[in-house]
Amino acid sequence: MNYGIVIFILGWILRIEGALLLLPCATAVLYRENAGWCFLATAAISFILGVALTHKKPQNTKVYAREGFVVVALAWLVMSLIGAVPFTMCGDIPNYLDAVFETVSGFTTTGASILPEVESLNHCSLIWRSFTHWVGGMGIFVFMLAVVPLLGGSTFNLMRAESPGPVVGKFVPKIRDSAVILYGIYLAITIIEMLMLWMFGMPLFEAVCHTFGTVGTGGFSVKNTGYIGYSPVLQNITTFFMIACGINFQFYFYLMAKKFRMAVNMTEVRAYLGIILASILLIVINVRGMYGTLEETVRHAAFQVGTIITTTGYATYDFDRWPEFSKTILLILMMMGACAGSTGGGMKVSRFVIVLKGVRKELTNIIHPRYIKKIQFDGVPVAHETVRNTNVFVAIYFMVMILSILLVSVDNHDFTTNFTAVSATLNNIGPGLAMVGPTQNYSFYSGFSKCILIFDMLAGRLELFPVLLLLAPGSWKKYT
Amino acid sequence: MNYGIVIFILGWILRIEGALLLLPCATAVLYRENAGWCFLATAAISFILGVALTHKKPQNTKVYAREGFVVVALAWLVMSLIGAVPFTMCGDIPNYLDAVFETVSGFTTTGASILPEVESLNHCSLIWRSFTHWVGGMGIFVFMLAVVPLLGGSTFNLMRAESPGPVVGKFVPKIRDSAVILYGIYLAITIIEMLMLWMFGMPLFEAVCHTFGTVGTGGFSVKNTGYIGYSPVLQNITTFFMIACGINFQFYFYLMAKKFRMAVNMTEVRAYLGIILASILLIVINVRGMYGTLEETVRHAAFQVGTIITTTGYATYDFDRWPEFSKTILLILMMMGACAGSTGGGMKVSRFVIVLKGVRKELTNIIHPRYIKKIQFDGVPVAHETVRNTNVFVAIYFMVMILSILLVSVDNHDFTTNFTAVSATLNNIGPGLAMVGPTQNYSFYSGFSKCILIFDMLAGRLELFPVLLLLAPGSWKKYT
Repeated sequence: MNYGIVIFILGWILRIEGALLLLPCATAVLYRENAGWCFLATAAISFILGVALTHKKPQNTKVYAREGFVVVALAWLVMSLIGAVPFTMCGDIPNYLDAVFETVSGFTTTGASILPEVESLNHCSLIWRSFTHWVGGMGIFVFMLAVVPLLGGSTFNLMRAESPGPVVGKFVPKIRDSAVILYGIYLAITIIEMLMLWMFGMPLFEAVCHTFGTVGTGGFSVKNTGYIGYSPVLQNITTFFMIACGINFQFYFYLMAKKFRMAVNMTEVRAYLGIILASILLIVINVRGMYGTLEETVRHAAFQVGTIITTTGYATYDFDRWPEFSKTILLILMMMGACAGSTGGGMKVSRFVIVLKGVRKELTNIIHPRYIKKIQFDGVPVAHETVRNTNVFVAIYFMVMILSILLVSVDNHDFTTNFTAVSATLNNIGPGLAMVGPTQNYSFYSGFSKCILIFDMLAGRLELFPVLLLLAPGSWKKYT
Repeated sequence: MNYGIVIFILGWILRIEGALLLLPCATAVLYRENAGWCFLATAAISFILGVALTHKKPQNTKVYAREGFVVVALAWLVMSLIGAVPFTMCGDIPNYLDAVFETVSGFTTTGASILPEVESLNHCSLIWRSFTHWVGGMGIFVFMLAVVPLLGGSTFNLMRAESPGPVVGKFVPKIRDSAVILYGIYLAITIIEMLMLWMFGMPLFEAVCHTFGTVGTGGFSVKNTGYIGYSPVLQNITTFFMIACGINFQFYFYLMAKKFRMAVNMTEVRAYLGIILASILLIVINVRGMYGTLEETVRHAAFQVGTIITTTGYATYDFDRWPEFSKTILLILMMMGACAGSTGGGMKVSRFVIVLKGVRKELTNIIHPRYIKKIQFDGVPVAHETVRNTNVFVAIYFMVMILSILLVSVDNHDFTTNFTAVSATLNNIGPGLAMVGPTQNYSFYSGFSKCILIFDMLAGRLELFPVLLLLAPGSWKKYT
């Protein structure tokens, strides 16, 4: 382990967090809230600490895979621990562990909350809560790589450790240019949604916060009733943007580059949209008669499917009251998740496609023992390492899931609650079913279980490996 | 597809089933039950049909992987369809679909029942029900290979398709000798348990039936209360034999061959026993205070752990009343299952070990990118194909599981019921939790859901691939 570079990068993350915390500070000025001082103090400390750690650039700036994975996991932990401080300092979330849960839930774009109601919170707390979604959605390291001319060439392993999906999407040869393009697309989508929500009648502050929550596929709301109270058109706009942000951003890059055929032929995007349409259809058939009109049925089905497959977590209806078949579809979508290279969580559609192709290959192999064709994806053979890594990913995923369910079961809540709480945090969704349903919250879990769920949220957002490497003693050995 | 050999082998299976059906016939004579005629008629038809199909040996007796997998899946289906006939004919299970469910549950050693009570059944029905466990436990093809000098050399693919675990255990170079040794060990264990249960006070008929259920790790009982009513010593004997039959039979072969060191060093057996001990310990701690004495606590914990990890399904206590933590441990054991090469079901401990080693290798690879050591098992490197097949197996396993849960959710029962019903059938256990708990039964599911659960039982017992190949159109193409 190259400790020098790890500390140096963590320092930069602290400096960036200090800068990001100025948004709630500005909000506090606007609404004349005293809580703003807490954010300002935290921002100052974070920035000063960051400057101190980045004072001296280390001699060896090589970031191998090991450093990349470990520093990304550490950075997300540190960011959350510091981001939680102002919540507790200003009294909005008195218990620090709860504040950490809420902040991790924010940065990982989970949207699971321990707050029974949010409308009494300070505006600066609310906007920070939503802003963490926006930052975490595209990733803090992508942001850092875009704005800080940092380390020269050895940044690939940072991108690799943070970005979701089985392979790293590099649009252009230079990592930094890719990062700039990604954040450019992200910013554009954000601004468009914000304006549309505002235009169609959502108050500006709410539009800003909900846009952060939508494009980051997070799910924190500034209303106690979430999206239930908004007009159909606002619900539909949000459905559109949730689904749009669950698409692999490569798609938008192709569109920008006028490579329309490449965009339309993306296997993952086609599978993703196909799954969404099929799910909506099945749910509409299953819940017919529960709503007045077909329009309403489709609207609620589409919103709920969009919110779950993209792992956002808003709700226009308490889907815990749907029949079991529809609820089970949502549970499956929870695990599936959105596209790789999007802001959504879950296992990712491309992993499912690769696993499915592996299954087909194995069956074909029994029928035709001499068949040796490689698995193809978007017309290109998938590297053996990617297939193996995907298989291992799925295995670890279910192991972490099962172990987490076992550990939180110590609290003796029912199986549906535990199962969906772990699913909803590991896949960065937010609401589950039963006691953690869309109209409930996570405050009843014990401190121990909250720690497990915090771990799951981080493990889910960073796709398991960074967090596991953080726990592997081998990662910490000095180079000899 | 070589249809000639498939039909020929199916014919032999029918002849064997005709012979096996003589056991309930004999029982009917002993108890002077008219229902015996139904069994005799079925036996006769099965045997005559079998003789007709095996009348002419096909020219080409080659059994490739494709034929092996398909014929095994078909044979299990045909066996169950015929084995169910006498139940309906004699009126013990009036609905034929229910009778098929019960018979599949028997042959696959699941032990899930649609009967609310069993004590009113004919003795010949009861013994047939339990005997299917015994036959299915070690496998009908292993039996056929042991007794019928059938096909010359090309029987490896039959053994491979039916025997549980990631690799086929061949004790000796000749398949037939291996099959004879396997059934020899199996028969010896059966007789010892039978005598012990009888000696310690269980009536002979019950001892015979419960022994079939134990050594086949099935779980059908001839008492409405299952094992709850038996004395502690009978419960403990059964615990011992359940756990013993979940051990890889290679272990006993080593013991017989006096290769004690080889036996003791078997990775899978050590892991299996370690998991059992750890689970008992955790449950004893969790349920302390629910029973009068420590002896009683340990006895119930050991019995339930043994019954679930070996996928037997007897119960000495309604474990649905245990706290959530203990229930979750049982759920995990359900999926894990027993050793490969045993009569137990589930994913098998060796697959877990291989997957775990794969995970460790992947993490080590990130830390040391130049590390290229192969995964080892029992000191031998695991073939690349085995690792890949294991990974694919785990993926298919979870896919079948998730899809089944979705399909049975159409009946609109609660999630815990659906989840554990699918787990309990796919892993060939029998009882689940909630509405399919140890004191409940499966009769309330719709015909459609029963078909799904029948599929799961067969898929679980035959370890997915044969049943999936049955559904793959490519399997049925004629050779050109």
